[in-house]
Amino acid sequence: MTATLAIGPYNQSERPALEESFNAHVVADPSEAAGMDPAARSTIKAIAYKGHLPFGGAEMDLFPNLGLVANYGVGYDAIDVDAANARNIRVTNTPDVLNDDVADLAIAMWISQGREMRQAEAWVRDGKWASDGAYRLNRKVSGGKVGIMGMGRIGRDIADRLAAFKTDVHYHARSEKQTPGWTYHADPVALANAVDFLFVALVGGSATEKYVSKEVIAALGKDGVVINISRGSTIDEDALLDALEIGAIAGAGLDVFVGEPDLNPRFLALDNVVLQPHQGSGTVETRAAMAKLQRDNVAAHLAGGDLLTPVN
Amino acid sequence: MTATLAIGPYNQSERPALEESFNAHVVADPSEAAGMDPAARSTIKAIAYKGHLPFGGAEMDLFPNLGLVANYGVGYDAIDVDAANARNIRVTNTPDVLNDDVADLAIAMWISQGREMRQAEAWVRDGKWASDGAYRLNRKVSGGKVGIMGMGRIGRDIADRLAAFKTDVHYHARSEKQTPGWTYHADPVALANAVDFLFVALVGGSATEKYVSKEVIAALGKDGVVINISRGSTIDEDALLDALEIGAIAGAGLDVFVGEPDLNPRFLALDNVVLQPHQGSGTVETRAAMAKLQRDNVAAHLAGGDLLTPVN
Repeated sequence: MTATLAIGPYNQSERPALEESFNAHVVADPSEAAGMDPAARSTIKAIAYKGHLPFGGAEMDLFPNLGLVANYGVGYDAIDVDAANARNIRVTNTPDVLNDDVADLAIAMWISQGREMRQAEAWVRDGKWASDGAYRLNRKVSGGKVGIMGMGRIGRDIADRLAAFKTDVHYHARSEKQTPGWTYHADPVALANAVDFLFVALVGGSATEKYVSKEVIAALGKDGVVINISRGSTIDEDALLDALEIGAIAGAGLDVFVGEPDLNPRFLALDNVVLQPHQGSGTVETRAAMAKLQRDNVAAHLAGGDLLTPVN
Repeated sequence: MTATLAIGPYNQSERPALEESFNAHVVADPSEAAGMDPAARSTIKAIAYKGHLPFGGAEMDLFPNLGLVANYGVGYDAIDVDAANARNIRVTNTPDVLNDDVADLAIAMWISQGREMRQAEAWVRDGKWASDGAYRLNRKVSGGKVGIMGMGRIGRDIADRLAAFKTDVHYHARSEKQTPGWTYHADPVALANAVDFLFVALVGGSATEKYVSKEVIAALGKDGVVINISRGSTIDEDALLDALEIGAIAGAGLDVFVGEPDLNPRFLALDNVVLQPHQGSGTVETRAAMAKLQRDNVAAHLAGGDLLTPVN
């Protein structure tokens, strides 16, 4: 009998580490956890959770002695924190260690979209450069007007990078932040009106669902580009697709999608988008750091110590 | 009879501007210029030059009253400046206006190579994400040890961006520069030994041919990545290909190639490279600025005024 259950698609370095550190029992998803023997479930004090499947009150109630759900990832929208609070269960996440990777990908999607790097690379690899001449001119990105929707830690890391590209930085957040003179907009539509490139760095969950609304997308206008590294849910995806298809905005760079990995096939017909498979934090280095922080939270809970990165 | 000859592949906005500003005669390349009537050649005082075909003493001697070769582009290695000096011909280029675009592309190639963005995008577009699961983990780039080979104006713009990615910046140049504490290496091999990511921002021409030598590439080592936005000639391309093929270095991001646009087909067999069709300055905005600066130099020469961006 073990005190630690690991739920989710752990990889070949993460799984042995969980087993060695805690003698953890590892299952693929919440439904497999539900199928465990009740006696085994009753010994579980901590769950190391990975993935985007919902984990709510019903799942928590399967484990009468559960005291911690330690999420792998900074976004914990899969976990019902209100339900955890009602059961006196603590929740942790893995913030900060992934900020750099996510910000890097945001910047690269931004430049790649404007500079048409995917199409330009195909031009080389298909031999068109030699047969048909220079690739077509595209769009300058540095020096542009950029907006950050959600100025949390990841938003700040994106903005700090953008500033080095000589951009004019604007942002929207629930409240004004300490910045190096960047322009705050209390209204998301006003932010979109002020910029050409909009970086979405909101937290996920119901409070931000379709926060990048049809109105925000319309306000970006025909030169507007949306970069999203947060959650697919933060954008009104149908409105985004409509705008991309008719050229009401210029393009998008997206690492996250509603219903991923089954993304809306309308995206695949577009040439003005950069599409990435939710790999914002997907480096060997960062995933190792995230897995370690998750384990450190589990260890702290089992030892009765302070959690490193508590959510509630 | 006109005083201005334009040589090169001018586009549909550049050509009319040259014709309207100077009543310029426009030809495709130096050989077509050589075929002009001698009387027409004798009226030419200024040449607006675009392209990478050599323009040397023999070409200059076709124009007995030539006083200026105004190059389109910052790199003027196609133009024999010694031959120009010997004939009292001035040469201008178009520096600075393209630095941002070139630096942007360098940064995006760096991130794209490490984060395998081309392969990850294919993973999405081919439906593998839905059928086979998450794309494989790849490599963190921010926070790494980066080196700039050639700390001119473009190198500096690359370094300023890299600093915002929390990197440890090293550089090699003919002499130490004023920097925010970056590490200078007098020896190019020492620079390569100190870093994982090497950005080549050298000037072109015979003095820098194969400056990124077999020894420099070997010193980068198996985690090393080369990013080149300068000229294909600055790297020992055979040594680079050998190293890429056997994994002696980790990868490359290349916008320039020896013999471009007919690049060595060995590049096309590699999966660890980002290949771009010499589009460093290839945006609508920057090419317009380059064309204007070229015309402003021609106008200054014809009016007997000071050249804006003289090379010699």
